[in-house]
Amino acid sequence: MVLCDIGNSFFHFYKNGRMWKEPLNESFKTEISEPLYFISVNEKGTKKLISKYPHATNIESLIVLDTSYQGLGIDRIAACVAVSDGVVIDAGSAITVDIMQNSVHLGGFILPGLSAFSKCYKSISERLNKEINLHVNLDAFPLNTEDAISYGILKSVVLILKDSIKSKQPFFTGGDGKYLAKFFDNAIFDSSLIFKGMLKSLQKAGIS
Amino acid sequence: MVLCDIGNSFFHFYKNGRMWKEPLNESFKTEISEPLYFISVNEKGTKKLISKYPHATNIESLIVLDTSYQGLGIDRIAACVAVSDGVVIDAGSAITVDIMQNSVHLGGFILPGLSAFSKCYKSISERLNKEINLHVNLDAFPLNTEDAISYGILKSVVLILKDSIKSKQPFFTGGDGKYLAKFFDNAIFDSSLIFKGMLKSLQKAGIS
Repeated sequence: MVLCDIGNSFFHFYKNGRMWKEPLNESFKTEISEPLYFISVNEKGTKKLISKYPHATNIESLIVLDTSYQGLGIDRIAACVAVSDGVVIDAGSAITVDIMQNSVHLGGFILPGLSAFSKCYKSISERLNKEINLHVNLDAFPLNTEDAISYGILKSVVLILKDSIKSKQPFFTGGDGKYLAKFFDNAIFDSSLIFKGMLKSLQKAGIS
Repeated sequence: MVLCDIGNSFFHFYKNGRMWKEPLNESFKTEISEPLYFISVNEKGTKKLISKYPHATNIESLIVLDTSYQGLGIDRIAACVAVSDGVVIDAGSAITVDIMQNSVHLGGFILPGLSAFSKCYKSISERLNKEINLHVNLDAFPLNTEDAISYGILKSVVLILKDSIKSKQPFFTGGDGKYLAKFFDNAIFDSSLIFKGMLKSLQKAGIS
């Protein structure tokens, strides 16, 4: 069985604990003949996957989360299903933050991903077109534009994460998850969180 | 005497305590024959101003700030000159935050402006193309996409401002300054902060 999570930038694949990703805008490099179960937040990606793998099955309806949130993305739902208590932080194109308590989703919020944040400054002025410095000191006020932008991005993200985590257990996933996890002593980084939620839901439905 | 601060979106004018702005991309609506002193962070705007008002004088070299910051924008310098102790927050196309102590600039950082922040989400995914809800509750986890984005923007901005202000006096200026000032009990909003710094520098140079 192969799992696929279709995001805004990549197809993320999973098979027996092994993961790989393929860019949305390139041809698929992998042949898949076994059962292929997927979720998607990107319609174009869904069409592309099905056209290459006509046997692929969308399992969105099998993944059930107790929440009052209207319009929660299926990738966020899958990651939350994998966690009964804690804060789920998926740091990809966007950074989504969701609060789980006793297997109930209490709500969540969305930040721009680190790369989108960086591009955002460039859109304001060419003077703010700087690469993000991931090693900027967050304990001293910056003294140049590159650090001023990097501090603005990273400190604001870290502070709002701290505010939402408090004494709860943070679970990081996504491309920038490993980096952000470093700011939290008790952080768990798990790049397969979404797939764990998909597997749990498939097992519940008797498919495994 | 008329003062002009050329930003990334507007020409900001000042005369005898009265202020008005004109968009960068439109024709000037005002005739100015008296002395016109300006600062600029936008070269295109500078050229446009001088071509319309050939007598306009750039007073950048008159505005002096004690700082180790490399490449501080002249608008930030002017606003800081107007404040001897406190945190200067200019919330426009970008949100700049600068720390002043005993008339010395200790450093600062840059956030995207609220409008640029909002556009940033749209660039990630059409699903995140939502208007910012300025009345979102920052004390409860959001339960829909619009609130999740608005909370992400506003709470991250408010938290990093709180972190930098602590017990210091915040001075807000710029288009979104009045709105952001509401989150701080002791905030001073002064839309003329940059012009006050320009006036102070002109007086020091014997021009007034």
